[in-house]
Amino acid sequence: MLVVKVGGSAGIDLAAVCDDVARHVLAGTRLILVHGGSHETNVVAEKLGVPPRFVTSVSGFQSRYTDRATLEIFEMVYCGKTNKAIVEMLQARGVNALGLSGLDGALLTGVRKGTLKVIEGGKRKLLRGDFTGKVERVNVALLDLLLAHGYTPVVTPPALSYEGEAMNVDGDRAAAVIAQQMKAECLVILSNVPGLLRDVHDEGSLIRTIPAAAVEDYMGVAQGRMRMKVLGASEAIAGGVGAVLFADARVPQPLTRALAGQGTKIA
Amino acid sequence: MLVVKVGGSAGIDLAAVCDDVARHVLAGTRLILVHGGSHETNVVAEKLGVPPRFVTSVSGFQSRYTDRATLEIFEMVYCGKTNKAIVEMLQARGVNALGLSGLDGALLTGVRKGTLKVIEGGKRKLLRGDFTGKVERVNVALLDLLLAHGYTPVVTPPALSYEGEAMNVDGDRAAAVIAQQMKAECLVILSNVPGLLRDVHDEGSLIRTIPAAAVEDYMGVAQGRMRMKVLGASEAIAGGVGAVLFADARVPQPLTRALAGQGTKIA
Repeated sequence: MLVVKVGGSAGIDLAAVCDDVARHVLAGTRLILVHGGSHETNVVAEKLGVPPRFVTSVSGFQSRYTDRATLEIFEMVYCGKTNKAIVEMLQARGVNALGLSGLDGALLTGVRKGTLKVIEGGKRKLLRGDFTGKVERVNVALLDLLLAHGYTPVVTPPALSYEGEAMNVDGDRAAAVIAQQMKAECLVILSNVPGLLRDVHDEGSLIRTIPAAAVEDYMGVAQGRMRMKVLGASEAIAGGVGAVLFADARVPQPLTRALAGQGTKIA
Repeated sequence: MLVVKVGGSAGIDLAAVCDDVARHVLAGTRLILVHGGSHETNVVAEKLGVPPRFVTSVSGFQSRYTDRATLEIFEMVYCGKTNKAIVEMLQARGVNALGLSGLDGALLTGVRKGTLKVIEGGKRKLLRGDFTGKVERVNVALLDLLLAHGYTPVVTPPALSYEGEAMNVDGDRAAAVIAQQMKAECLVILSNVPGLLRDVHDEGSLIRTIPAAAVEDYMGVAQGRMRMKVLGASEAIAGGVGAVLFADARVPQPLTRALAGQGTKIA
């Protein structure tokens, strides 16, 4: 059982990811693909006159401020454009892919925050009306049912709050929770960098291995969006996932390369 | 087994449809909801600088010319915005809704046309690069699997061509094929009119009943988008569906009213 998360940043080669995912699925690997759509959401939101707003929480994590108008654009891109593009590419490659957001069949449920404590211009602020939350429960029965019948789930945020509202959740951490609750041997997080870098400006500074027990020590090394990925990895490892791999999605055969050790391995 | 199609035209009260669908599902009705998103697609397409283009085929049916750029916007609205809005509303009402496009699990497959024969300015023209087609096969096993496990499928175009491409298909006719292949007793088509009208400008001219054998005679009465609905109805009846109802989706309890006979009944 493999959970593969592919990011939504610029530069990612989704066709190469789908080629490689298809190769592994057709060879018999039980696989769940989780994806993002962040960059394209920014592009569409700008065009629709609702420019993205990123905020930094008091604990130092960056996230998208998601009011209801932003949530609708988020859903259009993640669930409409990106999810269906991936499902179409996998179907054309012989994989019976089936796209699901966290809303569908209550696949991903959790707590909505509603209020964000952020730092803006050096000051602490409370932001209300935010549709963001954290995935706590995965509908494991639904994923098992689909996998058992030959479907490959392609999963995307948003998730569903316990009150029945759609909410933006971080894709990396959602993938981590899925990997835990599906008892995956391995979580592969593909993005537009080769892995965790000591120096974010130097791709040669790749960290090859991190002992599972030391993963939290590396939170300080990670910057920007990578912080969320390392947090997700530490949660997955704590939850019993055997290994987490960070690897590059801008190259041919990105999954095969990741599994062969060309990235950062946490185990 | 009930298949309910709700259109995507302006004026439709989706919250009222979801209230009523939830009431029937929670009372034990096996139900599949199919939806459109035409009006909202026009709005978003205009904003994104890809204005919609409608064409009339040589056989007199109007459809959206769907090049690849239009198809992506179509997917954003149908699969992202509208499908997830409906799934969220049903989840909040206690229904375990699960959204599927025709691509997902190869739910709806068929032939892509590619080339359209249209009439423009009184002249016949061939339009190429069109991603439009016709649903022929429904993945009945997938719908049965989901229904048997307590999920309510919320289905939307596009469908998948036999070559593995996404293609725009008419939602009413897709619903008709689903009703046939799922052996539904009844197909309910809700839109922004009270039913089939003798005079499209007079809502008092509602036709109450049409004998199944005579449905094709009424093709001449139907105008605009209603022609496709009557065609879908005639296909459903020919395929063994017991009854097709056309009814109003701008009122409270639209499904209950339709089933009580407040519309056009073809049986």
